[in-house]
Formats: sequence, structure tokens, C-alpha cells
Amino acid sequence: MIKAKVVGAGGYGGVGITELLLKHPDAEIGCLVSLSDTGRKMSDVFPHLRGFCDDVIVSPEDPRTQEQYDVVFFSTPDGVGMQAAAAELERGAKVIDYSGDFRFGTAERYAEYANFIGLDPAHKSPDLLEGTEYGLAELHDINESNNLVGNPGCFAVSCILGLAPAVAAGIIDPKSIIADCKTGVSGAGKKPNAAFHYPNRYDNMNAYKLAGHQHTVEVEQELSLLSSDTVQMTFTSQVVPVCRGIMSCLYATLDGQKADEVLEIYREYNKNNQFVRIQGASTPASIADIRGTNYCSLTVDVDERNNRLRVISHIDNLMKGQAGNAMQNMNLMFGLDSGIALASPGQYP
Amino acid sequence: MIKAKVVGAGGYGGVGITELLLKHPDAEIGCLVSLSDTGRKMSDVFPHLRGFCDDVIVSPEDPRTQEQYDVVFFSTPDGVGMQAAAAELERGAKVIDYSGDFRFGTAERYAEYANFIGLDPAHKSPDLLEGTEYGLAELHDINESNNLVGNPGCFAVSCILGLAPAVAAGIIDPKSIIADCKTGVSGAGKKPNAAFHYPNRYDNMNAYKLAGHQHTVEVEQELSLLSSDTVQMTFTSQVVPVCRGIMSCLYATLDGQKADEVLEIYREYNKNNQFVRIQGASTPASIADIRGTNYCSLTVDVDERNNRLRVISHIDNLMKGQAGNAMQNMNLMFGLDSGIALASPGQYP
Amino acid sequence: MIKAKVVGAGGYGGVGITELLLKHPDAEIGCLVSLSDTGRKMSDVFPHLRGFCDDVIVSPEDPRTQEQYDVVFFSTPDGVGMQAAAAELERGAKVIDYSGDFRFGTAERYAEYANFIGLDPAHKSPDLLEGTEYGLAELHDINESNNLVGNPGCFAVSCILGLAPAVAAGIIDPKSIIADCKTGVSGAGKKPNAAFHYPNRYDNMNAYKLAGHQHTVEVEQELSLLSSDTVQMTFTSQVVPVCRGIMSCLYATLDGQKADEVLEIYREYNKNNQFVRIQGASTPASIADIRGTNYCSLTVDVDERNNRLRVISHIDNLMKGQAGNAMQNMNLMFGLDSGIALASPGQYP
Amino acid sequence: MIKAKVVGAGGYGGVGITELLLKHPDAEIGCLVSLSDTGRKMSDVFPHLRGFCDDVIVSPEDPRTQEQYDVVFFSTPDGVGMQAAAAELERGAKVIDYSGDFRFGTAERYAEYANFIGLDPAHKSPDLLEGTEYGLAELHDINESNNLVGNPGCFAVSCILGLAPAVAAGIIDPKSIIADCKTGVSGAGKKPNAAFHYPNRYDNMNAYKLAGHQHTVEVEQELSLLSSDTVQMTFTSQVVPVCRGIMSCLYATLDGQKADEVLEIYREYNKNNQFVRIQGASTPASIADIRGTNYCSLTVDVDERNNRLRVISHIDNLMKGQAGNAMQNMNLMFGLDSGIALASPGQYP
Repeated sequence: MIKAKVVGAGGYGGVGITELLLKHPDAEIGCLVSLSDTGRKMSDVFPHLRGFCDDVIVSPEDPRTQEQYDVVFFSTPDGVGMQAAAAELERGAKVIDYSGDFRFGTAERYAEYANFIGLDPAHKSPDLLEGTEYGLAELHDINESNNLVGNPGCFAVSCILGLAPAVAAGIIDPKSIIADCKTGVSGAGKKPNAAFHYPNRYDNMNAYKLAGHQHTVEVEQELSLLSSDTVQMTFTSQVVPVCRGIMSCLYATLDGQKADEVLEIYREYNKNNQFVRIQGASTPASIADIRGTNYCSLTVDVDERNNRLRVISHIDNLMKGQAGNAMQNMNLMFGLDSGIALASPGQYP
Repeated sequence: MIKAKVVGAGGYGGVGITELLLKHPDAEIGCLVSLSDTGRKMSDVFPHLRGFCDDVIVSPEDPRTQEQYDVVFFSTPDGVGMQAAAAELERGAKVIDYSGDFRFGTAERYAEYANFIGLDPAHKSPDLLEGTEYGLAELHDINESNNLVGNPGCFAVSCILGLAPAVAAGIIDPKSIIADCKTGVSGAGKKPNAAFHYPNRYDNMNAYKLAGHQHTVEVEQELSLLSSDTVQMTFTSQVVPVCRGIMSCLYATLDGQKADEVLEIYREYNKNNQFVRIQGASTPASIADIRGTNYCSLTVDVDERNNRLRVISHIDNLMKGQAGNAMQNMNLMFGLDSGIALASPGQYP
Repeated sequence: MIKAKVVGAGGYGGVGITELLLKHPDAEIGCLVSLSDTGRKMSDVFPHLRGFCDDVIVSPEDPRTQEQYDVVFFSTPDGVGMQAAAAELERGAKVIDYSGDFRFGTAERYAEYANFIGLDPAHKSPDLLEGTEYGLAELHDINESNNLVGNPGCFAVSCILGLAPAVAAGIIDPKSIIADCKTGVSGAGKKPNAAFHYPNRYDNMNAYKLAGHQHTVEVEQELSLLSSDTVQMTFTSQVVPVCRGIMSCLYATLDGQKADEVLEIYREYNKNNQFVRIQGASTPASIADIRGTNYCSLTVDVDERNNRLRVISHIDNLMKGQAGNAMQNMNLMFGLDSGIALASPGQYP
Repeated sequence: MIKAKVVGAGGYGGVGITELLLKHPDAEIGCLVSLSDTGRKMSDVFPHLRGFCDDVIVSPEDPRTQEQYDVVFFSTPDGVGMQAAAAELERGAKVIDYSGDFRFGTAERYAEYANFIGLDPAHKSPDLLEGTEYGLAELHDINESNNLVGNPGCFAVSCILGLAPAVAAGIIDPKSIIADCKTGVSGAGKKPNAAFHYPNRYDNMNAYKLAGHQHTVEVEQELSLLSSDTVQMTFTSQVVPVCRGIMSCLYATLDGQKADEVLEIYREYNKNNQFVRIQGASTPASIADIRGTNYCSLTVDVDERNNRLRVISHIDNLMKGQAGNAMQNMNLMFGLDSGIALASPGQYP
């Protein structure tokens, strides 16, 4: 059994990986850590887990956190994982971090990200960066050799999966990309605030962080790895009154390719990607198709009149955009089938 | 493998049992039948099932419907099951019907129900009624000897589970019961209508069928079986803007019992009921605790100032109120553990 | 022009009365006071008011708060109005307080309320209580002689209007009342908290304060004034995912009266009540009918089988349940027509 | 008094103009016409209007429809107004049509639109086209000389107001425009369908009509009138779970202009446009700011890194996108102040 520690268990990312660990035949929960809710049962914080996970949440100072676990999930903000990962790796654990701490393979690239969002540009564990991998298995070969992975940002997953085939095929102008992205409210986490207070959020929608969203950096860096040219995009983050789900509309200028041709490029690119579903513009698709699951649904379309690629990318921000993708990484890092605990269809309606 | 046929596969009750059959290690889908959507893949009607259930939905006239299956689910309106069940039973199938057709053990009791809701009071297969059972395992012993079960109504499940311990213990006045019940919109089914058109339903709530809801009859009949006196209640059905979930507030006059005593009666009554969770009034509970699951959550409270029992009963109307309970029945009718494909915690948020 | 000061302008109660003052031909906003948002324009806090109310919100220490106004609205929690009202009255203002401070005409009745909810039972301005009136014009004659009014609680309005005709007519057992009340989320105010964080509130519903809701006291006291016997009820507060609106289902045991008779009693009682709409059980009614307005909609029904009155009472908790009712009081306290700024139908959908 | 006839009174466009006519001091409702709901009171179809508009809805064959009215609103689908407008104009009425019938000034331009959406390209009243005006007062001088106006499409209003200043100033590449538009569900009208059935729409979002939305034509035509070059855009219509509101994100390539410069162009362009609010990217804006009102809110932003204009345009699709704009047209066509019955701030939350 893979014994797991979850740091940040009291948040959405923590409860998400807990739910998946409970479904996993080869993994078990060893330790739940959080700064908040310490001393409470997980099932008192999240009553739906009653009878399934009644473990007590411990503080980061608790001795149990120092035991050896096979895998540690850091469902924590920027800055936590980079300070704690080294000790976990030394104890022999594999580490999956949800923040920006390990998404960038060099101190320089990290500094660019940190500067973009106003963090200290100096990484606290720069020596670990060489050994990290951007944890998106559709672009990178995650396998048993990986001990440290930076789980990608939710918007980034939707944009990268939606654009990678076109960028890799060299069919779009890498400076022409526009990503118009709408997220559900759970993307902002569990902490209440005025913007997500129900009376202010029901029947409402708005754009935010127009000055620059942190996920822009990782999308541009990841896509640039696939391109002969540097990718640069306009990114608009918006929030709509749904709980789970991201719908990103991705636009870029084509070089005359038709819809069928582009659709074939996307299908070929993803032929081994279990969690990517491709369809053409005439097939209806919506967030409900993938809500609660690890799937990414891509509607691949060409506005031939304007010679423009248009991809609608749907993911569940808490699954393929967070805990589901983290579990996919865990499976691959332990040599398991990537779909364990994940390959299921969700519930409708 | 238990081979299942689902009649009414195109509705919420049909897709619900399909999802559960896909999760079941010992069952498989043999045939999907519907009047609508005939000839389409199940996964075209319900895109979340893509890759999981791509079977084509057939019409009731299709020869494949005449093959032998081990279990047949009739997720159909009143009147369908009673005409088709006999043939299924003859072919050796066990039958689970979602409608009122087999919820009543005698033609007289059925007639009372049918009259209440304006149907023809003459049952089409009265000879089958002796062999049917009201399919609520918390009250009736469902087991391998059962071949025909009437799956209860969703409101009825919430009310019966919420009141049975008190009625059985004889601690409430059986004429004093008030059931104030709120359902999510999915309880009305998949067919669009004006009342559930999004702009009319968001931010709205209302009572309906004040003249009498059909589930009243089965609640009163089931509870009367537990009582020395005839149970008779006031029932108010209401709809609120949630998708899944029923919250029933149940009131009745006590004979001086205190909260602790009543709580103990409820705990004792349900000690072997895997899917019933009991808590006192000081423990927070909400629909989110059981959304997407087969659990019933009962908050047991006594208004001692007014000598009145108050129980808040939460279920997911599509699970414990429909397909989940049907699956629980199937498990028991085949001698399996009742929790297979059901004992899981749902997803939050 | 009636010059108004609004204390608590930064909350829902404050913005509600501001919106109504802007519509009022004979009133104007003189001063907006709040502890939060001090120094900001009202229209920066509430952007929909841009161009309509760009006044700066001042702190309670600002000299402008000491000027004379014709009316002062205290949209503040319990305990604020009772300390500040005397000074306002001395300056010649009429005072309308939204809290429990002035809902009770004697120190004893106030103490009962305060004890119920755990406040200091000693009223800070007991000498003012004789001059206050419970601000529900459907029960009390509010007129120019009134200088101090306690605006009622939102649940209380829905329950009192729904039960007063029956209690006054002596047709129900005053100990048999059950009030099953569902509120929209705005009833909890503007301050974010975990229970009303969008991901926890969408698609959710629950009961709360089962141990006792503060509005119970005022309902019982007001109804007892109409009854020869003391009224005592079971009250269940619930919250559902709507923004505005209360739906209270009210039950009580009748003495054999039929639906028509009871309906006539309700019509007669309300014949001069502009903001109460009555209908029988066969007329559909929902929160959407009165959303955004000052109307109370009562569906009057009798469950003749069980000899039980059932009234469904709908109000907008922020209008008839708060600011709208406060404006109705202001109109009457200044000898104006009660419907000014209020007699309009809202918007649909 | 301006006496109005509303054709299509039973839909959202009809009830919207009815609500506004009720608020208008110089107008009154003369006749409500609909194919559905004939013979019912308006307030039975829309219960919020009880006591405000209890007029009976008549069929188009009713003699009362043939009387003379001062203004006729056709809140009807394509094809109705073009057959009926001539008779109304002859009777001396002014006509405001909500459909595409009179949005195009020539038979050729109409044919282009009709072909785009699969209608018969031959206009039924081509002789009327010369006398019609595109009813958007921010671009066209609507005044007493206008007797026939084509009220614009809801998406079109949001796009045209959001792009006109930039197009008119010649600062954007007219072939680079992308309009990513999200609408609330009321935009699809009152008729129930599967896509807008509550259980399928709550917590859901999707793009639709990817092959081409009818409003594209009018946006391109209107903007081309302002440009030296033909404007051509990529348009993506999406639906999100709100009732009222459109949020359009508009992108286009600039020629090096900075944010301040562009913001100034927008402010100058709209200096006399009462219903357009402009802000820069640092001012928060959301649909809630203008919900229920006739205002258009434009957030004007430049992604200077990518040399790209980004405008977020918010309107209420049923107000500035439909009935509100129609009322604005009526006011101007009768020489009244454009803000009558419209210049109010809405309600929050």
C-alpha cells in the first residue's frame, strides 16, 4: 500500500485528494495535516466523509507528520512546499506539490513567475529544481523515476491541453493566442470572501486580475517548450456562478488549415491520452460532461472565414485542474496505471 | 455477472441506475430501453458516459428487449411496469419497479393510491401484488426470495425513514404528523417544463400539489404498518433551486419524551441500517453531506417546550430516493452485500 | 423634503433603504454612516448606485452625523439603536430601528427576548420603550404620532402576517402552531462566512439554530396580543440557495373550519392592507411573484382531512422583511401614503 | 399619453416592456397581444403584475388589435414584424420591432443576414427598409422623425457598444476582432427546452452555435459603417447559469496605443451617452452592477505586452439588450428624455 500524507487537508485540494485516496485500491491515508481545523476529525470538517475518513487532522508540528510516508501531497500555497519538500524527499517520500513552487525547472524561470505575481524571486530550494517535473502527463513523461512533481495550475491545464497540439504542429502564430477563461467559484478555494459570498455571486459574473494572472507564466513557458518561437498570449480570467469547472475559449491565427485537418492533429496528439476527449464543433459539449471527473474535453473548431483556430477546453478545476491530476501523477510516479481511482464517468445531473 | 435491462434509460432514473451498474463489480448492462432517444448511443444522450456506456438505446419493440436478463429495472411512470412485469418474471428476471405499480401489496391498497392521484383504480396485474415487496430495506427484509419490488417514492423515503422509529416506538400521536418537504428540481424528471425553466427556477421557491401529493399514501400506509393506530399526516411538497436533494422537516406530538431518549430510539432502530446516519440537533447537517450518495441523514430533535418531535431528514432524491435505493434492492435480491457500488462518500464541494 | 440619515449604510439593510430613498419623491439622503467602508463613496461600495448615490460614507464620529435629520434608520445589530436613539429623538428626528432593541414595549418583554438569544437582559434605554411601536402596519396603527419604531424581524413578518388573521379570529389552537421557514441567503447579511461561501451554498440546504431562533419571541409576543391565550410555537429556520425571499409554511390545528371560510377571514382581515395578497390553494404562487417588492403573498389552505390550517407566506426578506417595511413605516410616520416608493411590481424573470 | 400595443406580450420581451410602460409617466398600455395565453390576464401569466396590469391578453385576430395606438412593440420572432408593420404605420403608429426584420437598411443587407441564419432572403416589406433605423441611440440619432426602428440583438448591443469607439477612432485592425460572449439564460426566451431545464443548466456552461450566431451579421455591419475597412470578427456565444446579463470580452489588435489613450477615446465617444459607463481595468465591475437596468458597463483595458485592446462589456440582456433599449427608442421617437422610466439603479443584492 502506498501510504500518503496530505498537507493542507482542510482545503478543497486536500479533501479532493482524500476522496481519491479513499477510492484507490493500492493507497491509503497515513496523515492529514493542516494549520486550520487541527484536532478535528476530517469527517467533522467534511461531513460527507463520515464513516469513510474519521482521522484526526494534525498540525505541522505533530510528531506523526515526521514519520515516513510513500507520497506527500502539498495542497498548500506558494512557498510552503519549497521549504518542506527536501525533508520529505530525504525520508524517501515522493512529493507532489500543488503550488507554483516546483512548476519551473530552473531558478530563472521560477524567478520570472515569482516576479510576475509579486513573490520573492529567490527560490528557497533551488537545488531541487533540476529534479522536478511539470506534472502534466499529457506533455511530460511522468514515471517511476520522478520523485518531485509540480502539479499545474487549473487554468494552465485547460489552456495547455487546448493549445499544445496546435503549437507543437506549428500551425498557429505563437503571438496571436488569446485565452478567454471562465472558472467556477471553487477555484478560489475554501476561504470565504466578499466576492464569493452567495448573494454577491449568484446571478453574477466578472473578469478579474486583468493586470495579469499567475497561470499565464506557466502556460507560456510550457507552450514555448513545444514551439520554435516564444509563445505569448492575452489571458482573461473570469468567474461565473458555477461551483466546479473551467471553460477556456482559446483563439489563435492559423495558416490556412481547415477544421478537419486541425481536428486530426488534435486526435493524433492525444491518441494515448486517456483523459483527453476530442470533438468537432458540431458535437455539443458542456461542463456537465466532465464535472466531477479527471477528463479534459476539447472542442476543436476553425473559423475558416477568419482563418482562426478556436478551441473550447472544459475541465473540472478541482479534478484535472487539481486533485485528479495529482492522483494521475501519483499513479504514474509509482508505476501504476494512470487511471486508477480516476477512470469513472461522474454523475448526472 | 448479473445482466441488467433498464427500461426508461433516457430519464434521470435510467441514467442513475446505469451509472451504478457501471460501478458494480458483479453486474453489467445488458439492454437499455427507452421510448425516446431510440437508436442513439447512451453516451450521446448523456455525454458524461462517453467511453463508459456507448450502448445503443433500443425501443421496447426491439427483439433484444425479449432476451433473458437477470434483473429488469422499470424506471417508468405508473402503469408501465404492471403491464410488463409478468413477462419478465416468467423469463426468470427479478424486477425492480420505480413507480407506484408495485408499492402496495393488495389491490385494495393500490386502488386507494390510484384514486388519490386520479388513475384507474384497477391494477392490471393484481395476481402479482401478493409477491411484491415495498422496496425499503430499512423496514422490510429484502432478500434472495424477492423477485418483485416496488421501489419507493423519493419523498416517501425521506418521510418514512424519518418517522419510522418514532412510530414503531409508539411515542408520537399518529394523527399529529406534519411533513414539510423540500425537493430539488431533478425530482420532477428530465422533461423540460415552464416551472423548471432556469429563469423561472433560479432564485425561486414554491409549494405545489397542495391538494394532495401521491407519496402521502405510501407514507401513511407504511407507517400504519408500524403503528397500532392509523397514521395520517399533512404533507407539503415544495421545490427549491437545488438539483439533487430532499430536506423533509417532520413534526409530531410526543408524549413527554426528551431529546436524548428519542435519539437513542432512533439509533437503536437503525443500528443495522448502513445507509442511515443519525445525529442530534447540535450537529450541523446539510444536503451537501449526502449529495450524490445513498445515505439518509436524520437530525433528531425534540422541541421540549412544545413537547414536539422534529426530525430533519436529508436524502439525495436520485440516490436513496431512486436509483441508489434500487441498487440496494438489487444487491439484496441477489444475496450480495447491500453496499456494493453504493458505499462511497460523494464529492465535495 | 424628509432628510434621512442611514446608520449601517454599508450592509444590505442600509443599501436597501438607500435604494428606496432614491426613489422617494419627498425624501432625500442626508447622511450615510457606517463603521466599515468609511471614507468610500457609497457607489464604490455598491457600484450599481454609481451616478445615483455618490455620497461618501462617514464614520459615527463624523460631525455630519450630529446634524439634524428628519428620520434616522438604524440598520444595525442589537444594542446599537438603544444607545443612540435618545439623542436622535432629542434632535427631533423620528427613529426606525431594524434590530430587536425597540420591538418590545416593556423592559420585561425585552428581557425575555434578550435572554432567549443570550444578550444582556437589561435594556439600555428602558424609558424609551413606552414610546416605541412594533413596526408592522398590518397589525399596529403607525402614524404621525409615532417617533420611534422597531422594525420587525424578517421571519417574524412572514409568520405574523401568515397567522394573525387566524389567531385574531380564534379559529386555531394557539399551542398547535408550527412554522417551517426557509430563507434566502441575504437574510444572513453581507459579511462573508463559511456557511454562505458560494461552493458550500449552491445546491445545498439545511436547518439551523434548532435550539431556538430569536424571531420566535417576537412572533409569539405579537400573536399573543391578538389571542385570548398565550401563543407558543415550534419554529424551524432553514436556508436555501436563493438570494432574496422567505417562504414560511405555517400549520395549526383548526376547529373544523373549511377552506372557504378561512380564506374569507384572511381576506377580511387584510382588506385595507395594501401589501398583503391573498389567494387560495389552487392559485400558484412563488417567491418570484414578490421578489424585489414589499408585498407579502399568503396562500391560505385547509387540510380538511386533518383539520389543519396551512398558510404559505412569501415575502422578500430585504423588502417587506426589512428595508421595504422600514420605508412603509417612514411613510406612515410622516403622514404620507404608505405605498410611496414601494407600490411597484418588481421585475421578472 | 402615449398609448402602446405590445405584440408578443407573453414572452420575456413583452413582459419587460410592460413593466417599463407601467413605470412611464407619459405612456400607458393599450393592448397586449399574444398567440399564447390568449384570454388570460397578464397578471395570471406574470403574477408579479397582479394589481398593476390585469389586462386580458388578446389574440392577433381580436378587433382591439386593429385600433389605433401611438406605438407598437413587436416582441416577436423574425418574420412577424415585416408582415404587420406597414398596417401599423398606416394607422399612424410608430413601430419598434425586436427582431432582425428592420435592423438592416437595404434588402441586400437583410438578405445577407437572412442567408446567414437560413431564412428566406426576400424581405416581405422591402419598401419599408429605407425608412427604418438601427435602434441603437449611441450610434444613430433616433428622434421624432423616426417611425420605424429595428431594436438590436442583445449580443450585438454588448459588442457594438464595446467596440464602436475603437473602430471609429481607427485604432484597431478591423479583421482582428474576437468577441467572446457569455449570456444568461433568459436570452433564450421563455419557452422551456432541454438545454435550459434547471438540472441541466445549474452548475453548467457551454458554447453554442459555433457555426455562426445571427448577431454576428449586425455587429459586423454596424461596425463597418464606422470603419474605412470592412469589419469581420470571430464570435463565440456561450451560456452560463445566470438569469439576466451578458458579459462580452472583446479583443482586437491595436497599433501601439496605451491604456490611458484608449480609455480617453472611449470616454470622449460616450460623453453624451447616458447609459454607457466607462471604467479602466483597475476598477472592479460585474454584471451585478447593471443587472435589471438599461446601463452598459465597459471596462476598457489594453494588454500592452501583446498590443491588444481588451474591453469587457456588461449589459442586462433583457434591458439594454432588449426592452430597456426599446423604451429608450420610444422615448426618443416621441421627443422625450431618453432616460424616462429607465434612469434608475436596480436592486442589490
